[in-house]
Amino acid sequence: MISDINNIFSEAALRMKPSAIRECLKLTQQPDIISFAGGLPAPESFPVDDLNKITEEVFREDATAALQYTTTEGDQLLREQLLERYRNEGCDITINNIAVSTASQQALDLLGKIFINPGDKVICGLPSYLGGLSAFNAYGAELTGIPFDENGMQSTLLEDKLKELKSQNDLPKFIYLIPDFQNPAGITMPKQRRIEILEIAKKYDVLIIEDSPYREVRFEGEHQPMFYSLDNTGHVITLGTFSKTLAPGFRLGWVIGHEDILAQYIQAKQAADLCTSTLIQKIAAKYLQKGLMDKNLEMTIQNYHEKRDLMIEGFQKHMPEGVRWTTPQGGLFLFLYLPEHMDATDLFFKAVKQKVAFVQGEVFHCDGSGKNTMRINFSYVGREKNIEGVKRLAEVIKENM
Amino acid sequence: MISDINNIFSEAALRMKPSAIRECLKLTQQPDIISFAGGLPAPESFPVDDLNKITEEVFREDATAALQYTTTEGDQLLREQLLERYRNEGCDITINNIAVSTASQQALDLLGKIFINPGDKVICGLPSYLGGLSAFNAYGAELTGIPFDENGMQSTLLEDKLKELKSQNDLPKFIYLIPDFQNPAGITMPKQRRIEILEIAKKYDVLIIEDSPYREVRFEGEHQPMFYSLDNTGHVITLGTFSKTLAPGFRLGWVIGHEDILAQYIQAKQAADLCTSTLIQKIAAKYLQKGLMDKNLEMTIQNYHEKRDLMIEGFQKHMPEGVRWTTPQGGLFLFLYLPEHMDATDLFFKAVKQKVAFVQGEVFHCDGSGKNTMRINFSYVGREKNIEGVKRLAEVIKENM
Repeated sequence: MISDINNIFSEAALRMKPSAIRECLKLTQQPDIISFAGGLPAPESFPVDDLNKITEEVFREDATAALQYTTTEGDQLLREQLLERYRNEGCDITINNIAVSTASQQALDLLGKIFINPGDKVICGLPSYLGGLSAFNAYGAELTGIPFDENGMQSTLLEDKLKELKSQNDLPKFIYLIPDFQNPAGITMPKQRRIEILEIAKKYDVLIIEDSPYREVRFEGEHQPMFYSLDNTGHVITLGTFSKTLAPGFRLGWVIGHEDILAQYIQAKQAADLCTSTLIQKIAAKYLQKGLMDKNLEMTIQNYHEKRDLMIEGFQKHMPEGVRWTTPQGGLFLFLYLPEHMDATDLFFKAVKQKVAFVQGEVFHCDGSGKNTMRINFSYVGREKNIEGVKRLAEVIKENM
Repeated sequence: MISDINNIFSEAALRMKPSAIRECLKLTQQPDIISFAGGLPAPESFPVDDLNKITEEVFREDATAALQYTTTEGDQLLREQLLERYRNEGCDITINNIAVSTASQQALDLLGKIFINPGDKVICGLPSYLGGLSAFNAYGAELTGIPFDENGMQSTLLEDKLKELKSQNDLPKFIYLIPDFQNPAGITMPKQRRIEILEIAKKYDVLIIEDSPYREVRFEGEHQPMFYSLDNTGHVITLGTFSKTLAPGFRLGWVIGHEDILAQYIQAKQAADLCTSTLIQKIAAKYLQKGLMDKNLEMTIQNYHEKRDLMIEGFQKHMPEGVRWTTPQGGLFLFLYLPEHMDATDLFFKAVKQKVAFVQGEVFHCDGSGKNTMRINFSYVGREKNIEGVKRLAEVIKENM
């Protein structure tokens, strides 16, 4: 090895911390553990037969194109299909406002790359998706978290913070939001809050990144308008993905935004991976074109609804007093609050010994707060493990109260 | 749009220049143009039937795993299969020395990210693959080019440069090499030159990135040992890909290196795209496991050999005196030298008018030299276009001499 191994890595590399989820997931992968830790969709939600048939069709009808390079912005048919879906959401866009990504994580990474200089401020939620925070952190972002209430990011606190930053001539590069069924909090922002936050963003002339991986997985309550559709000023960039609605193994997502921003995104993507898998894009495009998406989504939604209900039922039955949780109207996660004095990281290792796992909520808080919280995934495990896992978890919490 | 659009992008974004290849490719995509510009494998080289069958098998036997997330380092079977291939190449490695990438471009990007701070030196060839240069450039690398002779990078000039940089306490982060059938020059470095360069790298304690996308596409001459197999000190990182041997539409490659470097690479990859498509990895793994790779490669090699021969024959027949070219023993590209006073960029636009295209060699030279050179791809077009395109190109050159 070169002798200088400790001095050769870049500042970006030194800023990357081993992901807590990654390290913990290793522990939770023992086969006898009931894991609520990961963010995996249910395997039974994958439309295997349809995808198999469509893949055969792609090989039969379009193989040489599917195996060749494609454009960086992505497959034409796929973008047309997405365009239609987003127009139905009320977004005033053309195909030039859509570019493909190698799933949302790439979009988060590349938006970090094109916007963030070391020391730049970025606003996120307290809590917020760890993969987003890690991506921005690698570029040297200084993350500033805004606390949540039951409707998500508090707009008054956001405005206070922007006022303060503006007076320091240090406005953030963007505000990072997951408006629907937030990861990890499971909270959905109502329309009124969205309008307030958008108005504040426009007033201070700051971009919003609307990360929207779970939006289509709603089991109850009213559909809330996308930030993108509420805006008509180019202040919003929206990220979508097939990872929670079709197959994470596809690694396929997209970015919607103003053409000037997309031009820069596409240039960054070209240096990052030239293009996303053509074969995968063509399979997904055909899947959408055949109208199969919504049929399968309906089943997924029902499935996750039942799983959420079952879990909440278990919590109500078994959790000791002083433990609270969110009741998400969709998505894959809920958030659990232990009494203030408890530490979920301590509890994690005790829980793993009792063969049940979660992710400590602290890792989603850029300011190190949230020590008494935990993220619980309800989409992955089946009925029996859901029931048994909740019992074990409640037991561990009780014992450590 | 936010009012501050010109001030919002990061320094990294401002360093990204629109790729010349990208802009020119747009011009060359008119259907009546014979294009030697791209870097596309021949569509007839794709093993469509085998891939179709294997994909069906993956769906039948392993669908839920194939559609789910996988580990960042990559599919176990795929890495085992690659391990076997590289052990046969004389590399002393374990599975922990191999990690998957979303094709080589991602590996180039992430190695840039984990090694390069703005202002860091990177050594590359004069000329060198533009996608590598673009990736490093985005992180603020100062590229230093070392001229080639007929055996590739000149070791004496490399040593002179390293001596100079060392005296300035500014040694490069790595030396970027494409030892086999170099893009764009079409040159293969003989064993002796490899040994010299490796010794210099070790003496100055500098890493080598051995980018090896074409290595398996050799049509004549002797197999030269990999830098990785010549080294036993952890100074070499090798990149491989399926893009030129199986299907670029897969976006699947790998990195081989010391475990400490791979650990950092994997961390960067996690923030960049979490993992590479599981489905694609499983298809490729099975394709290797069934021993289909070498059978198909044989046909590809014969095909490209014939295409190269045909092109060189055309050059010999039609090119005016004063024009020289390399005769690559493999790969997809050859390099053409016009007389010193000629400018290939001028010629490009004239050639496009005459319905033939190439890439001006200047874009592969980090110091702006090489104005009289052009890169010619011979793998993509069929027999008739090969013959006709060479005639047109020779005509344009003659007219502008």
